[in-house]
Formats: sequence, structure tokens, C-alpha cells
Amino acid sequence: MSASYSLDMEYVRGVVKAALEEDGAFRDVTTLALVPPEQRGRGVFLAKEPGVVCGVPVAQAAFAAIDPSVRMTALREDGQFVEASGVIAEIEGPLASILSAERVALNFMQRLGGTATLTRALVDVVAGTKARVVDTRKTTPGLRGLERYAVRVGGGGNHRYNLADGVLIKDNHLAAAAARGLSIRDVLAAARASVPHTMRIEVEVDTYEQCEAAAAGGADVILLDNMTPVEMARCVKMIAGRALTEASGGITLQNARAIAESGVDIMSSGALTHSAKALDISLDIETVADHRA
Amino acid sequence: MSASYSLDMEYVRGVVKAALEEDGAFRDVTTLALVPPEQRGRGVFLAKEPGVVCGVPVAQAAFAAIDPSVRMTALREDGQFVEASGVIAEIEGPLASILSAERVALNFMQRLGGTATLTRALVDVVAGTKARVVDTRKTTPGLRGLERYAVRVGGGGNHRYNLADGVLIKDNHLAAAAARGLSIRDVLAAARASVPHTMRIEVEVDTYEQCEAAAAGGADVILLDNMTPVEMARCVKMIAGRALTEASGGITLQNARAIAESGVDIMSSGALTHSAKALDISLDIETVADHRA
Amino acid sequence: MSASYSLDMEYVRGVVKAALEEDGAFRDVTTLALVPPEQRGRGVFLAKEPGVVCGVPVAQAAFAAIDPSVRMTALREDGQFVEASGVIAEIEGPLASILSAERVALNFMQRLGGTATLTRALVDVVAGTKARVVDTRKTTPGLRGLERYAVRVGGGGNHRYNLADGVLIKDNHLAAAAARGLSIRDVLAAARASVPHTMRIEVEVDTYEQCEAAAAGGADVILLDNMTPVEMARCVKMIAGRALTEASGGITLQNARAIAESGVDIMSSGALTHSAKALDISLDIETVADHRA
Amino acid sequence: MSASYSLDMEYVRGVVKAALEEDGAFRDVTTLALVPPEQRGRGVFLAKEPGVVCGVPVAQAAFAAIDPSVRMTALREDGQFVEASGVIAEIEGPLASILSAERVALNFMQRLGGTATLTRALVDVVAGTKARVVDTRKTTPGLRGLERYAVRVGGGGNHRYNLADGVLIKDNHLAAAAARGLSIRDVLAAARASVPHTMRIEVEVDTYEQCEAAAAGGADVILLDNMTPVEMARCVKMIAGRALTEASGGITLQNARAIAESGVDIMSSGALTHSAKALDISLDIETVADHRA
Amino acid sequence: MSASYSLDMEYVRGVVKAALEEDGAFRDVTTLALVPPEQRGRGVFLAKEPGVVCGVPVAQAAFAAIDPSVRMTALREDGQFVEASGVIAEIEGPLASILSAERVALNFMQRLGGTATLTRALVDVVAGTKARVVDTRKTTPGLRGLERYAVRVGGGGNHRYNLADGVLIKDNHLAAAAARGLSIRDVLAAARASVPHTMRIEVEVDTYEQCEAAAAGGADVILLDNMTPVEMARCVKMIAGRALTEASGGITLQNARAIAESGVDIMSSGALTHSAKALDISLDIETVADHRA
Amino acid sequence: MSASYSLDMEYVRGVVKAALEEDGAFRDVTTLALVPPEQRGRGVFLAKEPGVVCGVPVAQAAFAAIDPSVRMTALREDGQFVEASGVIAEIEGPLASILSAERVALNFMQRLGGTATLTRALVDVVAGTKARVVDTRKTTPGLRGLERYAVRVGGGGNHRYNLADGVLIKDNHLAAAAARGLSIRDVLAAARASVPHTMRIEVEVDTYEQCEAAAAGGADVILLDNMTPVEMARCVKMIAGRALTEASGGITLQNARAIAESGVDIMSSGALTHSAKALDISLDIETVADHRA
Repeated sequence: MSASYSLDMEYVRGVVKAALEEDGAFRDVTTLALVPPEQRGRGVFLAKEPGVVCGVPVAQAAFAAIDPSVRMTALREDGQFVEASGVIAEIEGPLASILSAERVALNFMQRLGGTATLTRALVDVVAGTKARVVDTRKTTPGLRGLERYAVRVGGGGNHRYNLADGVLIKDNHLAAAAARGLSIRDVLAAARASVPHTMRIEVEVDTYEQCEAAAAGGADVILLDNMTPVEMARCVKMIAGRALTEASGGITLQNARAIAESGVDIMSSGALTHSAKALDISLDIETVADHRA
Repeated sequence: MSASYSLDMEYVRGVVKAALEEDGAFRDVTTLALVPPEQRGRGVFLAKEPGVVCGVPVAQAAFAAIDPSVRMTALREDGQFVEASGVIAEIEGPLASILSAERVALNFMQRLGGTATLTRALVDVVAGTKARVVDTRKTTPGLRGLERYAVRVGGGGNHRYNLADGVLIKDNHLAAAAARGLSIRDVLAAARASVPHTMRIEVEVDTYEQCEAAAAGGADVILLDNMTPVEMARCVKMIAGRALTEASGGITLQNARAIAESGVDIMSSGALTHSAKALDISLDIETVADHRA
Repeated sequence: MSASYSLDMEYVRGVVKAALEEDGAFRDVTTLALVPPEQRGRGVFLAKEPGVVCGVPVAQAAFAAIDPSVRMTALREDGQFVEASGVIAEIEGPLASILSAERVALNFMQRLGGTATLTRALVDVVAGTKARVVDTRKTTPGLRGLERYAVRVGGGGNHRYNLADGVLIKDNHLAAAAARGLSIRDVLAAARASVPHTMRIEVEVDTYEQCEAAAAGGADVILLDNMTPVEMARCVKMIAGRALTEASGGITLQNARAIAESGVDIMSSGALTHSAKALDISLDIETVADHRA
Repeated sequence: MSASYSLDMEYVRGVVKAALEEDGAFRDVTTLALVPPEQRGRGVFLAKEPGVVCGVPVAQAAFAAIDPSVRMTALREDGQFVEASGVIAEIEGPLASILSAERVALNFMQRLGGTATLTRALVDVVAGTKARVVDTRKTTPGLRGLERYAVRVGGGGNHRYNLADGVLIKDNHLAAAAARGLSIRDVLAAARASVPHTMRIEVEVDTYEQCEAAAAGGADVILLDNMTPVEMARCVKMIAGRALTEASGGITLQNARAIAESGVDIMSSGALTHSAKALDISLDIETVADHRA
Repeated sequence: MSASYSLDMEYVRGVVKAALEEDGAFRDVTTLALVPPEQRGRGVFLAKEPGVVCGVPVAQAAFAAIDPSVRMTALREDGQFVEASGVIAEIEGPLASILSAERVALNFMQRLGGTATLTRALVDVVAGTKARVVDTRKTTPGLRGLERYAVRVGGGGNHRYNLADGVLIKDNHLAAAAARGLSIRDVLAAARASVPHTMRIEVEVDTYEQCEAAAAGGADVILLDNMTPVEMARCVKMIAGRALTEASGGITLQNARAIAESGVDIMSSGALTHSAKALDISLDIETVADHRA
Repeated sequence: MSASYSLDMEYVRGVVKAALEEDGAFRDVTTLALVPPEQRGRGVFLAKEPGVVCGVPVAQAAFAAIDPSVRMTALREDGQFVEASGVIAEIEGPLASILSAERVALNFMQRLGGTATLTRALVDVVAGTKARVVDTRKTTPGLRGLERYAVRVGGGGNHRYNLADGVLIKDNHLAAAAARGLSIRDVLAAARASVPHTMRIEVEVDTYEQCEAAAAGGADVILLDNMTPVEMARCVKMIAGRALTEASGGITLQNARAIAESGVDIMSSGALTHSAKALDISLDIETVADHRA
């Protein structure tokens, strides 16, 4: 794993262990019945379509959890591109161990590779603009840390981790405050007074008028929700650097360039994590006839 | 939840709690700063497209974990059809609690609704044949129990839960045995001798010849891997009831009917869980101006 | 540990760790007060009566949890026979560590050795018949995985692991269905429609007539509950291979041969796990006078 | 549960939950397939032999964990005697819930009832002497708290809970110290200096001479290991109240009276927990035909 | 608990449960031996010195964990001032339950009351300036959430929760970057490029020159480390609103006013959590003679 | 760590891991952004004031949890004295790992060093008397095992671990018994009959008369609560060796000598753990310019 995409391996080991237990991999009755522990195997992880590799250390953790003597060697590291039919990694070790962890390992590599590949595509589309592509909280329950990693591996950035470590004032928060007679300015002041000074205050706006109020009220970041590129450009111009701007809502590979050219700083996309197509990867295993190998 | 789709609520509460913790929902700094505990809200869960409802008890568990005083009332139960713009459920309670759990609740309902809807579609396509649509082990790590539930809710059945509770002899198992000089008959006998007598022995075959050997060797279930409907029909005829047959590999809404008409007993589809499109659902919240409501 | 008795060491380490914590072994005040860490000891595990060795890897895990530098070397592996006064294993290492884990290690070896020894006795009694001796769910809470292992080590097989991974329709299930107007045939069909196709359907019968209905209704396995060998033989003859047969209830070393000769396929015995006498094993420790040894 | 046998219900709930999960009771596929949630049942727990009731609150916790609406009502409380065919408790509730937890509930009641019954027998044998019957650390891994409770319920007392909360200097500790040139007096002084002053110092002796040294060295409790009643009486006389005395090793219903009459204060028996025969209890269930009951 | 000091009760229950288990409160041998369950008691929590009340809900959680029937009623809520000899709360319930949880409950109230009281004192000293008093990461391991709550209850604010949810570039980070040839401006740009846009970038400076570089480099917050009030005032003037300023290092009740008057926005004090004197509180218990009360 | 202060490293690793997770140390966004994994650092732990070193193995565990390749080498072991500006330990390894665990490591060393230093001071004051200085249950929730270790490291002893492993009859227990008509003698007998014989019975008394009753009633240990040295001496003389005596309440460095000279056996001080001033220690880090070092 390249240094630039840091991954908490303690967390990874926990997620992988839970996935293996869910899959009964420590008590694989078929393999226990049919494959003696001394029989060895080797194989290759093949990409069946082009994409960005992601999740090799996760797959390695899966095999290691089952059997530390399995050796999975990356030929391409996370973040590298692999063409169709390209070999991502080689594996060698006790065949029974390889078979019992195979499904879980592939599952993670396919899912994370899909997110990294889609992120890379979106990043490429906006290349040359100042827009940074980031994820959202629309991640798979239990896998947020891994999916955020895949976004970084694909060249994107991360939004706040969760509700506890960032402030994002949404339409319902504004409506709740309005019901109590509070303006956007009041809301921004209340948030400022209440949260750590290390957090920026971000507010979601739907209209130019709301955006004006947010900028005037001292928002640090303004999320432009479901606006057209033209509306966004108008907002960006009006804000004039007083706050960062984030485009959100319905961003696709088709409309991303236009949105980026509106001048926004950030583009957040839930699709990166909830709708990325899995990267098709297979593990081709060859049984080693000579058990002594 | 209808009686026919049993769901282990203890497990659900565990999954939901972990998802809320991952999302920082117990320490939602924005909501804590802006929404006083006595302010109330109400809202409706709206389907933005037609589909099969699934996950209402899961969403209820999410709100209950944050605040037992939130009331989420199902207007449609899991397994019922909802049209576009149909109301799935109503919610009422402290607004802060609703906002902090909203994302997690929606996430589960959208994901599970997607699987239930796709399953229903596949089940409808094969209606009138004897084929039963079932899931596979290609589920989201950590969510297998929920995704299998969604398949049942959609009218499908379940395959083995995991590697520990069912026997499925795959190509790599056969190859490993062959490397040790063992035939399909030998492999079936070895499995039989080793696993509990409560388990059926299922074996995956790629060819008619393998299928003949499996049937002759006493397999209980034969998985016909990536065969054409014509090949499957030939295998089914040859097996002549000696074993159950399972079609697997690349089953789509388009080819499902033809496959079912080949006479197979079981049709397993990984797509039900790894590629179902999320069902689009929104939570429309209305702040209650009078806090005493 | 021989390859043929696979044991999930991750599970073993968890059980052993919990047992050591329950016993306060990580804070053994007597040993901490009296035995300096540099003092070494060695000893032997002696069988005080003949039996089948079982649990050596479990004892090794106990010492390793306390102190990885303790070396416990098996002279007889799990599944081997040991005569009275035979040495099962040698141990060497820091004396304090040996003393703190001794009780837990012995406890497991005695209990598991007892089950393996009783299983072997029952297996020997039925040798030459086709009957397979298996366990039941009457295991010690928390130790099921270990006790099932001991049955395998003793030459027996395993029944379903638990309520989740096998179907066994018992008298109460039949009575419940009868109260709703359902016949055995109906019950078998309902079970078949509801559980994964990878599971066999087993049904418990008390009478020849019930047995006839079960066989006719397509049961995969028929449990003959508390029948005499003569009744069993009559049932086996009538079933004529349409289903497997399992004898259950009150099987002893005395009556086992007669039951096996009735022609049943399976004989299940709760006594293997709930009533096996512990195998008497002692750890004779010799303090090493020279601390440098 | 009578006040005099306190039981930590938080601990009980944890043990019971783990046992139910091990048994797959939350996913009982047979019952889920065959017994609709609205069908009700009732039944009675019958003693099939006379004994001391123990574990009713544990069984209640098992049913409550599966379904809080199940009502299990004790007719005899823990510690009361039940004759053969006597009813211990009644149960009523959803039949499916009763069936799924039945095995685990019975398992605990039988095991704990066995220990309580054996303890009561030993206590009765020594009645009128000053000897107190207590347990040892030879308990089932994971169940120590419950088994100690069963000993109290049977009229006995408890020894130290584990290695961390009491001092017992055994032969190996003495040998280790002797190898370093230390006498019993030295060992007693070292223990005294090292452990909390709230702990008594107990030392195990094999001979009259060792016993003399222990008494002279200021031991608080002297364990007389595997002595004859005559030897014990001689030691008790010599000690003359300077220390408590504990008889240990091979205590049976046959020899207990003689041992007690030697004048010892404490009699500890591993058999109470590792060799008590399970109390035979059955749950006779009656399906309620009218689901509305 | 007042609405303005939100506290995650799920977290509180976990911390309190662990503390009770550590203290053996579920197996309090003295109380179990001496206080029958039906004996009742009542008492009052008395402040033995003046201070700010904090931790009443925590103490309530401790008693509830032992016994939900104990009633602890706050007479003063968290955040209210109590004079010497003032009654904070009343308690009533089974005496045994009160005694077993007393120590843990008092422990939390004393510790948290100490922090709240010291915070209030510091807040009062700087009243009228714009400086906000906040905590640091110098909290008690395992109790950070509670101690931050106590700071809020005392009228202060919170700094970042931990290393994961805020950016604070310290001297060692700057030195590490300098060793690689990077300036403060480079470091700020690198941090900006790498962390979520929802986080402010804070940098610690020791000198006016560093401060100039930080302000010029676009820091969002500048921590003035161990400067005199005069130096701080000079920095604040130079920064001129381009960044927030935080005073840190050696802040006491004596020097706080002078520091606040330097014009800094934030004053962080580790002493609030690591050196606050416990608030002296006692629980005066009165046994209720009539057990029926 | 010297052999004489045993420390359960399994427990330590658990406490340290939880502290690091609480501090977000596995996801330190600042360090991840700014310090590349290959950059190395080294540093020294400096005492900024004289004291007794304690917690080096705990700090080592903290760095090991983050990164096993960090090397922290003790120059002074736990229990040794360090002068102001003395070096306690050296550290070397990846700089990022050092920075992420620094705060947690220091936190433990400072806190434990403070307790060890205060204990040593108290032990020195009473040197030459027979009084043994011990801790109480007034420890930091979650850290009792570590704080008791620090007391041993400082030359003190430990009181009971918790409510479960020792008997201490306090004023409220006596009052509760008195309300039921029981004398001190009755209470002592009841305790004796109920708890394991391995526990001493300790009772707290406030007056000479109570003390007389306790000694006459056979208490093993008598806690003299908040008495003057003169009162204590009178009690000690009256008890005349029939029981151990423990002085408790308000013991300071100033009055400790006088109390010790009253002849008490034990002096318990809550201040050792709840009011010890942290030992001031800093970690001075030097970045290694050459990354290859």
C-alpha cells in the first residue's frame, strides 16, 4: 500500500475477522472434509475488466486471519491501474486456507475496486479545475472506513467522517430553527458557540437568497444543493471567497465537468460509495499436485 | 413485520447500533447545537419509485436505539408493494432524535428495499415453473442476515447461510481431489463420511459428463454452473429426480424464464444482493412549531 | 493434532482466555507472591487411567495465553490411546506461568479426554455394522465446539451444530402442527418450502405408523425415538433406503450393539457429552533448582 | 429465588445469552418453518427423580432472552426439595419461543440441580458436626458463578472464587520455595508481606510435620491433603485452634461423616461441581389448540 | 440534566457498568452477607464544600445498573451551584443496592464536580472578555466524554475530541516538515490538501515570527504556546482577524484575566481535567427500620 | 519492569488500546497528512521534577499498539528514582507512530509516576515503624489495576481489590444490622458464616467501645476510622494482637508518622490514587533528517 493512502490496519483486521466469521470461514465444512491441510495451492487475482486496484491489504488481512502462512503478493498496489486480464496479485499457500477465505477476500477487492475506479473517473473528468471530489455519509453500514479509503485511493478526498466530527447544517436544521424564530445568521452563531473551534461550519442552501444569507452570516462552507451549474456559478461569484463552496446532488460523469467549471471548491458524490459497480475480479487457483512444493 | 419473514431482532439491534456508532449518531454535533430536545417533528417515508417495502423494523430499531420515544408507524409492512409517491411509514417524536438517526434508517430501507424488489421481479418472471429463486454468499460483509431476509421478503428462498452450515463442492475442491487421484464419486463419499448427516451434499458441475458422474455418485444437489438452458434441460432429464438441480451463473430478468423452463429446481443469483439498485426513499420532515404537540 | 480432527484454534483461544480470566489466572496472588519470574519448572502430564488423549492443543493454548515462552510438547497426539501411567506431554518453562495455568489446562484435557474415551468405546462396540456414532445438542454451555471435536477425536461423527444449521422436527413440532390440522406429510412439505435446499429434513417418530408416514412424506432422515432394536429393525426394513435412520434415546455400551444391528445408519448419544466421566490426568511438576537452566 | 442464595442476574443473562447463541436459538430453522408466532403453548417442568431444585431463575432468563412474553412460574424455588414426578415450574407463552429455548433452559436446570442435590446430600451426612462443605476451583469453564451458586443453594459454602482473590499455597509452591532454600515459615512470611491484609493465608500440607510447621509459622488456614480421618484428628488436636483446618481429597458420601468427626472446620469437594450427576428434568409441552388463549 | 449540556447516556451506561464491574459491585460479599434484599434505606448526597454540581445522571446510571428500583432524585441539576452542606440529591431504595454502588457513584460525582467547579471559576475570571475557556486532550483515559461534559457544565467549551476529528499542527510536526525542507506555508497547504474541508487547520507557534508565517500561510486557528500576555497581544494585533487565536500553556486562575485581555479567542487548559481537585461530596445513609416502608 | 512489581500485561494492553482508540490515535489526521511513514524520529522521556518512575511498560505498550517497530528503551525501570532533568527512557522509530501515541503514553507515565512518588514519600515517613501503607478503592474508574501497581512500585501494599474479594463491614452495614437488632458480634458471625473462609473479616469502628466489641467478637482486622493517634494507640493496646489494625481517614505526609507510631499495622490512604499530583514528564523528540537512518 502506498504511503499516501493510509489505512488503519487494526480496523481492517476487525472488519475482515467479522466478515470471515459471518461466512463461517473458520469452520468451512466442505473444505475441511475434502482438502487435507498439507495440500498446497497457488493462484492469481485477475482483473476481468480495467480499473483501479483497491483492497489488496484487505484481502491479505483476510488470508492472514485464516492462516498466517498464506502468501499473497501484490503485483499492482492500491491506486494503480490494471487493464483487463491484468494480474493484480499472486497467492500461494495451503489450499484449504486459500479456499476458505477466497469469497471474503474477493468481495472486498471487488467492492473497493469499484469505488476507486468510479472515483478516478470522476476525478479525471474534472481535472484542471479546482474542484475536489469527495465522498458522503451514504456508505455501507460497517464499511465506512474502507470505502473512504477507496475514495482516497481513487484520487478523491473525504468529507466529514460522521455526525460527530463535522458540522453540516441541513434544510431540516434550518427549518427547525425557523420554527423557533431563528434566521440563518442566528443558526450560524448558535453552531459557532456550541461546537469546537476546530470545526468549520457548513450550511446547506437551496437558493441564491439563502446562499447570500449564509455568506453574510459567516458560514465557513456553503453546500449548494441540487443547483444547476449556472446557479452555482452565480453563487460562487457572489460569495467571492468568503466561504468554500460544495456542489452536491445528482453529480454524474456526464454533468461533472460543467459543475466543476462553475468554480465550486468541492464536489460530493454519494454514488461513489452507494452505486459504484463492483470491479470484476476472479481468483484462478491451481492445485499443486506435489504436496511437498 | 409479517410472520412469514422472520427476523432476529436481537441481531438487527446489534447491526443498527454499530451503524449508528459508526455514523456518530449518538454525538451529532450539528443537531445537538441547533435542535433543543423538546422540539418535536413528524414526517413521512415516501417511496420515490415503485417497489417492495423492506426494512421497516430495521429503521424502527434505528430510531429506537437513539430515542425510544420516537414513534415510527408502518403504513405498509415489509413485503407489501408501494407505488411511486406512496407513503411507507409515518414518524413522530423529538426532532433531534429523528434527524440523528435519519441517514442510517434510510440507508437500510433503501438497500433492503432494492433487494426485495429485484427478488420479486425475478420471482414473478419464473412464476408457474417449479424453480425457486435463492440468494448466494455474495452479500455485503456484516449484513448477510438482513440481505437474506430481504430475499425472503421479496418471495425468494435462501441458500446455505455460510461455509459452516452447508456443503457445496466447487470446481477447486474437485481439482484438489483430482490432484490426489480422487474421482467425483470418491469426493462425494468423502464428504458424506465427514459432515453431519443433516446436510445435503451439493456439487458444482460444468459439463454433462461431470453431471452424470455426480448423479451416479449420489449427490443430493447438483449445481449446473453457467450452462445454457438447453444444456440444463438435458442434465435435468438425465438426472431424472435422483438429485435436486440448481442453476447458477449470470441469471438476469431476461434469461430467467428460459432457465426456469429447463426444469431446474433452484435458481441462485448473486445479483439479488450485490447488484440490486437501491430503492429510492426519502424522509420528508415537518417541524412542529408548537413544542407542546 | 492430526489433520483429521480439525479444530478452529481462534475459537479455542477465545474459550481458553475466558476460562483463565474466570480463574483469575492473570492475577494469581499466591504464585506472584512466592514464585519469582526467573524460577523455572518442568513436568509431565500423566494419565492415571487408560483412555483416548484429547485436548493437548487446548492445554497448549492455555499455557501460551499466560506465557508464550512455556513449551508443552505432546508425546501422544489427540486421538491416540494412552495406558495408565503413560505420559501424554512434557512441559517446561517459567514455573510461575505453569502453576497459574495448570488448573485450566487440566480441566480441559480431563473433560475432553473423557468424551473421546467414551466415544471410542461406543464406536468399538458397533464396529463392523454400518452405524455411525454421533453427538447431540446436550453439550456444556460454551463448550460445544470443543466437545464435538472430542467426539470426532474418539472416532464418532457430529450431528447438526445447532438449531440454525439443521432441521429436526420433534414431537412438539408435530403436535403443534396437528393442532392446526396438519399431517406429517404437510409438515414435511412446509419445512421443505421454508429452509435452504442444502439442509436435509429430519423428523422424529415414536411409532411404526408415524415412521411409515414420514417415509411416505419424503423425510430425508427419520429419527427412531426410544424404540427397541426389534422395532427399529422393522422400521428400517419398511423404509427400505428411502431415508436415513437415526436411533436415539438411552443408548449405552450394553445395548449399543443390538441397536446397531437393527440396521440404523446413525446412533446419537447425549451421554457422550453430558455424562462422560473425566479422564484422570495429573501434572507432576518438578522445580528446577538451578534458575539458569 | 430466596434471598439467601444471591445470584448476579447480569452475569446470568450474559451466560444464558451466549448459550442461546451457541445453540442457534435465535435462528431455529425448524421452529421458524413450522410454528407460527401466534400459536401458543404451555407446559410443566417435571422432576423425573427426587432432588434439590436449582436454576429456575436461569431458565427464566433463557426464555426471557428469546421472548419476554413467555411466562415461567416457579412452583418450587431454588433450594426446595422436589420429589419424583413433582412439578418444578409452569410455562406459558408463544410455542415457538418455548421450543427454541427449551434445550438451553433444561440444560442449566439439570446441571445445577445435580450440584445442589449432591451438595445437600453431603451437608446432610455431616449434620451436627462443625464441618462446612465447600466447593473448589474444579468447575466447568465459563460456569463457575452458577456452579458456586448451586453449592450455596444445596446448603454448602464457597471456597475462594479464583486465583486472584484468595491465597492457597500448594505443594508446588512449597517445593519451589524449598528449591530456593525457604522454609514453610519463610513462605508464610513472604505471602503475608505480599498480599492484601484482607486475605487469609492458607497452606496445603501432606504430613503431620508439615502441619506443625504451618501452624507454628502462623498460617491462617491449613489444608490437610488426602489424610485419613485419624491423621486429620491428630492434626486438628495439635493445631488447637491456631488455624482453621480444611479437609480435601477424595471426599465421598461414604467417608464424609468420619472426616467431619475428625474436627475439621472445612471440607472441600471438587466432585460437587465436576462429578455431580445431572438432575433428570423434562419439559412436557401441551400445544394450545385455540391460538387466542 | 439541563438540555444545554447534552450527554450520550448510552456511553455513560457503558462507562458506569465497567466501573461497577471493576469494583466487584455486582458481587459485594460484605453487603450480600449482611444486608437482606428487603431492607430499605434512604439518604442524601451532601456537598461538603461549595461548587458546581456535575454527574448526577452518571450517579443515577450507577444505581440503575445495580438495581432499577433505586430512586435517586436530583434537588440540584448539573450546572447548578451548591453551597457547603447543600443537598444535591436524595436517594431511596433497597439498602444493599445503595451500598454496593455508592463508591462508584460518589467517585464520578466528585471528579466531575471538581472539573465543573474549576471550569466555572476560570470562566468567571475571564467574564466580559471574548475569550472562551476550553479543555484539552489531557483527560483521564476512558473518561474523556464525561470530562468534556463537565467542562461544558462548568460553562466552558470543548477543543477537538481527539486526533481523528481535528487538525492541530504542533512543533514536532513543523520540525518534521522542516527536516524535509518544508516551510509553515507548505505544511499548511499539505494539511489543507489532505484533510476533510470540514476541519479547520490549527497550528501551534512559539514565536511572533512563526505566528506571522502561520497567518500569512492561511492558518484558520493559531495556537500561541506559552507566550506572555504581552506577546499574545502583539500576535493578536498582527493577525488582525485573519485567524482565530488560542492561548495555551500554564493558564491559572491568577494569570487568566491578563491572558484573556490580550484579545485571544480561545484559552485551553489541561488543568481543567488533569488537575481539578475533587469536589467533596458524601452520601449520608439512613437505614429504614421498618422493612415494609 | 522489576520482578517484584508484577503487572498483568494482557490487562495493560487492553487499557492502552482503549485509550488510544478514545484519542483517535489510529486515525491521527494531522500526522497522517504531514509525516510520511518512512520519516524517522528519536527522543527522550525527561523528568522535569524528581520522582519515582512508574509506567514505562505501559508507555511501551502504547507505542507497540500503534507500531511494533517503535523501540522504547528504559534507562530507569519502574520503582527507580529519577532526579529533575533525568532521562527515563529513549525512543526511536517511525516519527508518525511516535507522535500519534505520545499523548497517551505520557498521560499514563505522569499519572502513575505521581502515585508512585507520593506512595514512596509516605512510606519513607513511616519507615522504621511496623505500619504498611496501602491504597483504597478510591481509584480512577477503569484504571484500578494500574494504580494499585503504582502503589506497589512506590513501596506500598494493596488493600482488597474490590467489593468481591474482601470483607469490610462499614458503619452503614453496622447500622443496617442494628436496625434489625443485631450486635457487632452478631454481624461478625453472620459475615463469617457467609463468605469464603479464605477472607479475613474486617470491620470499621469509630469509637473505643465499638473497637472493644469488634475485638471481642472475633474480627480479624479492625479499621480505626478517623481517630487521633492517641485514640488509635489506646485501641491497639486494648486489642493486644487479637486483630490487625488499620488506620484510615485523612492521612497526610504531616500526620503519618504520628499515626504510624500509634502501633497500627496498616495505614490506608485514598489520596495515593485520587489526589497524587502528576509527575511532570516530557517527551523531547528529534526528527531524523536522514530518512534512511
